[in-house]
Amino acid sequence: MLHSIITLTTDFGLKDPYVSEMRAVILGISPKATVVDISHEIEKFNVRMGAYVLASVSPYFPVGTIHVAVVDPSVGTKRNPILIQAKNSYYIGPDNGVLTSAATKEGIDHIYQISNQKLMLPKVSRTFHGRDIFSPAAAHLANGTAPEEFGPEIRKIVMPNFAKILRRKNLLVGEVLHIDGFGNIITNFGETELKLLNTKTVINLMLKNVKLKVKLCKAYADVKPHEPLGIIGSHGFLEISINQGNAAETFKIRDRDKITLYCS
Amino acid sequence: MLHSIITLTTDFGLKDPYVSEMRAVILGISPKATVVDISHEIEKFNVRMGAYVLASVSPYFPVGTIHVAVVDPSVGTKRNPILIQAKNSYYIGPDNGVLTSAATKEGIDHIYQISNQKLMLPKVSRTFHGRDIFSPAAAHLANGTAPEEFGPEIRKIVMPNFAKILRRKNLLVGEVLHIDGFGNIITNFGETELKLLNTKTVINLMLKNVKLKVKLCKAYADVKPHEPLGIIGSHGFLEISINQGNAAETFKIRDRDKITLYCS
Amino acid sequence: MLHSIITLTTDFGLKDPYVSEMRAVILGISPKATVVDISHEIEKFNVRMGAYVLASVSPYFPVGTIHVAVVDPSVGTKRNPILIQAKNSYYIGPDNGVLTSAATKEGIDHIYQISNQKLMLPKVSRTFHGRDIFSPAAAHLANGTAPEEFGPEIRKIVMPNFAKILRRKNLLVGEVLHIDGFGNIITNFGETELKLLNTKTVINLMLKNVKLKVKLCKAYADVKPHEPLGIIGSHGFLEISINQGNAAETFKIRDRDKITLYCS
Repeated sequence: MLHSIITLTTDFGLKDPYVSEMRAVILGISPKATVVDISHEIEKFNVRMGAYVLASVSPYFPVGTIHVAVVDPSVGTKRNPILIQAKNSYYIGPDNGVLTSAATKEGIDHIYQISNQKLMLPKVSRTFHGRDIFSPAAAHLANGTAPEEFGPEIRKIVMPNFAKILRRKNLLVGEVLHIDGFGNIITNFGETELKLLNTKTVINLMLKNVKLKVKLCKAYADVKPHEPLGIIGSHGFLEISINQGNAAETFKIRDRDKITLYCS
Repeated sequence: MLHSIITLTTDFGLKDPYVSEMRAVILGISPKATVVDISHEIEKFNVRMGAYVLASVSPYFPVGTIHVAVVDPSVGTKRNPILIQAKNSYYIGPDNGVLTSAATKEGIDHIYQISNQKLMLPKVSRTFHGRDIFSPAAAHLANGTAPEEFGPEIRKIVMPNFAKILRRKNLLVGEVLHIDGFGNIITNFGETELKLLNTKTVINLMLKNVKLKVKLCKAYADVKPHEPLGIIGSHGFLEISINQGNAAETFKIRDRDKITLYCS
Repeated sequence: MLHSIITLTTDFGLKDPYVSEMRAVILGISPKATVVDISHEIEKFNVRMGAYVLASVSPYFPVGTIHVAVVDPSVGTKRNPILIQAKNSYYIGPDNGVLTSAATKEGIDHIYQISNQKLMLPKVSRTFHGRDIFSPAAAHLANGTAPEEFGPEIRKIVMPNFAKILRRKNLLVGEVLHIDGFGNIITNFGETELKLLNTKTVINLMLKNVKLKVKLCKAYADVKPHEPLGIIGSHGFLEISINQGNAAETFKIRDRDKITLYCS
């Protein structure tokens, strides 16, 4: 496996040298790896946001890509470092849910606890497993080390705490999955839920305590600038957006807020 | 064309997975491409800032570089996706002006409308052409697909709305092109305009409503720390700066503000 | 030296095209170089922060890596552009202290003043040596140009102004080296100082005017969420942190603030 792709998703930010230490360790072990940043601006300690971001982007990477995700508030405690072999990709990181959504979507073949110290840095800190355990694991995997070399197979992993959609009579209650940099409010409703509600052109919804009726559009610019709209976004989820504006700021909505859809 | 360089300029920010989806698509089609970020912090929907940034940096890239720029408030509407073949480089993005300054500076050979669906992702969303149309186009071009394969040649493209410099008797009226991260106020005046005004050592100017007289320097540190100065910056434009300070914040100046130069 | 690694550390930020101009120049001269960003969010003009960041990350890079660091408030004045040949790596940048900590830690073999104009861009501005002098130097070095070709050997370089630890009777006075993106307060105390004070489980300290007693931990999660702690961080320095919180904001501490440790 020459030119392997290794991706990085963390809450480390780009100001500090942490991300580049991971890259340094990877390139030291696997000089021809192509290291791709997914995001280092995951909200600090927000495992769920890491899980969402990784799951939305991983289907676009080529077969064989190795994804490293480090949002790890319990670093240095007894939570396991793991390596997941999924149908198309490998996932490396802490067993706290950050890898689970992406790996489950593909289909999981095997899960290994990373415990083989020969495949870690010689000195492992208890504060930075991204550099000391996960980066060397990714680089060795890129070099062809077999997944079962990293440690014993395990059966269960932690699930991230995404809410399920509740259905009552003529309404559906879901939640905000993610607010993106444009202020688009990405919900956990998909096309299936819109069909259930029989909404084709207009969506009636409640965002926290505010009632709203928006046009269901195909492109942001299908409404006038600064008007709100609903749209199935590029990952298949319903987004509440404002054309050339910031919906999350306008409606004061945050990650995990409740959202209710009504039958039209 | 093995190791081709593909650059990315967007207003997507680095928090969300959007930029990495573009990289994923590119590397899936053209694994040996070198993908270089120009900026993903273009102000949201500010086509003009994207045009400025791309035009300032593109001359430094090697011949054959493929530039993808996506600042695209009208994504999914009838504005054209285009591919410009210029003297040294290729430019790919929406036809809204974001590519025009850079391509015009080099000299444009051909413009193609991107319409060949075989060179796009199988499913094209109406919200993310950066991933579904522009990234695959760049990757196929890097792999050697001929520009004319992408679609029919077209003649006209949209111009970005930069102001022209107005000349009156003993003054010149221009505008702020860009405020950089240091707070340098980059104007659309060049050395030609300074010669017209016969200003060699001192510049008299009006920034919005504030009159100012600054020394024309060769290096920021030619004045004392925290003193204002004028300087021809690294792209050949007059900048109003403060040595080790932030001129835009100090003078409360923003992108597109008027600026007037007086004969000395 | 084909696939050489060239790292970039600057205070340029990622909004502007400056970093990508450096990358463009490097790839034009040395197309196979692997360019790695260390940080471009060094506080503007903060040479000391650049020196700290570079020194913490450089040991993790492979032998032969070329580090370019540009935090350069005196660009265009008579301060020297230099190339340091250290035991494992090369360092390129202005002679203002930004390279000194990292190079000294490795051991310095030779220092050269960069003055050979054939190894610079044809037109050298007085505002952007990162692009015009340092990037071409790194790329030519990656291509195999010998260090002594760049200019005459020199003997002395500027030291960055880090404070030394003061020892009095039963206390030690040090300073804050760096506040990271998590709000961890990284001090200039190491394990040696903790031994001097005979502190194994608890640290008594004064942060500016606030007295504090914290548990000395091995992992952030060894205390409850939102509780403060002391920890030897991943670079060997004592950090004052808050588990899943922001210590610097909570205690209103900034870079360079004084910190006093007491004998327990």
